[in-house]
Amino acid sequence: MRITTVGLDADDTLWHNESIFRLTQDRFRALMADVAAPDVLDAKLAEVERRNLAVYGYGVKGFTLSMIETAMEVTGHRAPARIVADILAAGREMLTHPVEPLPGVEAALADLARDHRLVLITKGDLLHQEQKLAASGLGDLFAAVEITSEKDAATYARVFDRDGTGAAEAVMCGNSLRSDVIPALEAGAYAAHVAYPLTWAHEMADPPLGHPRFAELASISDLPAWVRGL
Amino acid sequence: MRITTVGLDADDTLWHNESIFRLTQDRFRALMADVAAPDVLDAKLAEVERRNLAVYGYGVKGFTLSMIETAMEVTGHRAPARIVADILAAGREMLTHPVEPLPGVEAALADLARDHRLVLITKGDLLHQEQKLAASGLGDLFAAVEITSEKDAATYARVFDRDGTGAAEAVMCGNSLRSDVIPALEAGAYAAHVAYPLTWAHEMADPPLGHPRFAELASISDLPAWVRGL
Repeated sequence: MRITTVGLDADDTLWHNESIFRLTQDRFRALMADVAAPDVLDAKLAEVERRNLAVYGYGVKGFTLSMIETAMEVTGHRAPARIVADILAAGREMLTHPVEPLPGVEAALADLARDHRLVLITKGDLLHQEQKLAASGLGDLFAAVEITSEKDAATYARVFDRDGTGAAEAVMCGNSLRSDVIPALEAGAYAAHVAYPLTWAHEMADPPLGHPRFAELASISDLPAWVRGL
Repeated sequence: MRITTVGLDADDTLWHNESIFRLTQDRFRALMADVAAPDVLDAKLAEVERRNLAVYGYGVKGFTLSMIETAMEVTGHRAPARIVADILAAGREMLTHPVEPLPGVEAALADLARDHRLVLITKGDLLHQEQKLAASGLGDLFAAVEITSEKDAATYARVFDRDGTGAAEAVMCGNSLRSDVIPALEAGAYAAHVAYPLTWAHEMADPPLGHPRFAELASISDLPAWVRGL
């Protein structure tokens, strides 16, 4: 067997994430309905998030701060205080939202874990990602957990060296072409893309169709057979 | 030589941190001076931080959210919107504050790095801790960086196994008896305490005086000699 190690992305690969951000953004629009048009609000939030990304990084706390900043900016610093309290509550609910594995995830991981080292490789907020893994019930299937601030080729090379037998004997699987697939291929690993119905605009990229170490899978349920066929 | 690996805490061991939180809290008091008495504000902030710790964890983003929540609570949700914008700005400034190694740190680490593996072991916000390490100029001295959501005996056992040759051949050095010293001793490592003039109330504990693997050091400059004498 050629593959020893399987890296898995977390958000929107193992459990819902983007949909929870979208629901919160819907709630933000409703909260602000009296003071800002939805399209103006969306555009301003996207701008504020982009501006803050280098300082706040990925995750719910930075998103909550960006919603508050957006509320201030679109109202000329006259957002009703009640709105701020509601945004804080929305952020806290995102952080304590129940975590349900997506369909097929538990079976696919249990199957792969029998003869591969599974490594969770995810960006985002350290504490929140650890809490989601614990809440998901999937924690015991993983030999290692790597929570990183970026996911580039160097990250995958380092992680597969440290937690596996190098990138050449590793597969990375995730929903983001930009963060999971392309840099893992660059590092010399195999990569499988399992699309999620919603993809954050920051994570968009063209699929590397025809790449000899790439597969587009319809479901994570197809991952064990693909890995074993390599 | 018995010791192969030296773990170092980051905030208030290698560079200032608590003093930056204190300065921000002074600024928060000044911002709120017209709407809340300083002692009422401090008590409420401490209560809000304590309540949010399990959800937000450690770090500037959670602290910023807790300041905003405190401003709302002490004013009955009538905090002027200008204050919220100023709190957001204060939080962003904490995240981009220049990072200066504390006196003696560079020399002590350069000395130790000649014949020991140095491992940075710190709690807090992943991206922000990585940014501070990069800004400090100390990054190249470390063989590994471990940013964890908690620091307990199991954390130290795991880190010294993974990045060193086990806890029995490792020293941990930091300013917090509760987070750096006591759990590292429990894991079987040696531990040196270098006090910082300010200590966050959450991190208070009694020094384990008389413990055979513990030392209280006046300065990090004393660390290399102590490590080599073990």
